[in-house]
Amino acid sequence: MKASVFIATSLDGFIARENGDLDWLPGGDVEDHGYDAFMTTVDTIVMGRGTYEKVLTFGDWAFGEMPVVVLTSKPETLPALPAPTVTMMSGTPHEVVDALRARGAKSLYVDGGVTVQRFLAAGLIQRLVITRVPVLLGSGRPLFGAIGHDVPLRHVTSRAFDSGLVQSEYEVVA
Amino acid sequence: MKASVFIATSLDGFIARENGDLDWLPGGDVEDHGYDAFMTTVDTIVMGRGTYEKVLTFGDWAFGEMPVVVLTSKPETLPALPAPTVTMMSGTPHEVVDALRARGAKSLYVDGGVTVQRFLAAGLIQRLVITRVPVLLGSGRPLFGAIGHDVPLRHVTSRAFDSGLVQSEYEVVA
Repeated sequence: MKASVFIATSLDGFIARENGDLDWLPGGDVEDHGYDAFMTTVDTIVMGRGTYEKVLTFGDWAFGEMPVVVLTSKPETLPALPAPTVTMMSGTPHEVVDALRARGAKSLYVDGGVTVQRFLAAGLIQRLVITRVPVLLGSGRPLFGAIGHDVPLRHVTSRAFDSGLVQSEYEVVA
Repeated sequence: MKASVFIATSLDGFIARENGDLDWLPGGDVEDHGYDAFMTTVDTIVMGRGTYEKVLTFGDWAFGEMPVVVLTSKPETLPALPAPTVTMMSGTPHEVVDALRARGAKSLYVDGGVTVQRFLAAGLIQRLVITRVPVLLGSGRPLFGAIGHDVPLRHVTSRAFDSGLVQSEYEVVA
């Protein structure tokens, strides 16, 4: 089982404003930043309820037939699931990974700030693809949080886009 | 007058551990990361007392004949100045820039987390060169802080080094 993060942050490390707004992300017909290619490398998406509720506001369900697992400790308050591919789960990151492995998952896409932080702290992330947007927000919801120990990384590749986005891929050194 | 930042951070945005330690930085005979070339583009270094006291622990004075201005609101408690090129100054970032301009400075190197944050918030930084070290520290002293408004940037160039460091240069969009 492998788990990956693919996420955009401001140069100062925020994935959303304090209120969740993503208005600072380049929108519309921007260049391909590798998302489609990345999605071919994963088979299951894992996200927290905050990210899930944000995704619901985008309108059309964005993940097609890909299984999506929404992590929540209060499933009874979760908005209605929009597709049969979406399921809820509770538990620690290790419990979630074990359950998904038992379902046959081999490559997870872990999304959302809180969930990424929990999985990183549990040592369950192997790959990070971080795309830096050229703006300082000054405040917001940070991608990274407390871990309790260093996490050494190996730089795999970086590329800059005409839009000014800079994407770097890292492997977590086991 | 132009002011630049040239600094290394962990992937999660810290410039030092909570206790000031820099042990996570690659040391010794590492490859050239452009520091010498950068230094030829500045004529005055501005740093806060925290950075200054850290620099003093490195032993030999690192800045040669380059004028260094140490910002402090308590000059009477500052360690002895190690060279005639080192002076103290108090004041807001705007006052400091005005005073240095009057001295003939044309290109400042603004160093240290608190000082960088103050100058950024005051709109007095034009160039950021940030070198990402491939490690997550989980906690420490952050490079960036609250600003109160977005700061749009223009990506100038990025390069990755064999060591895994990734350096990106940005201009602040006026």
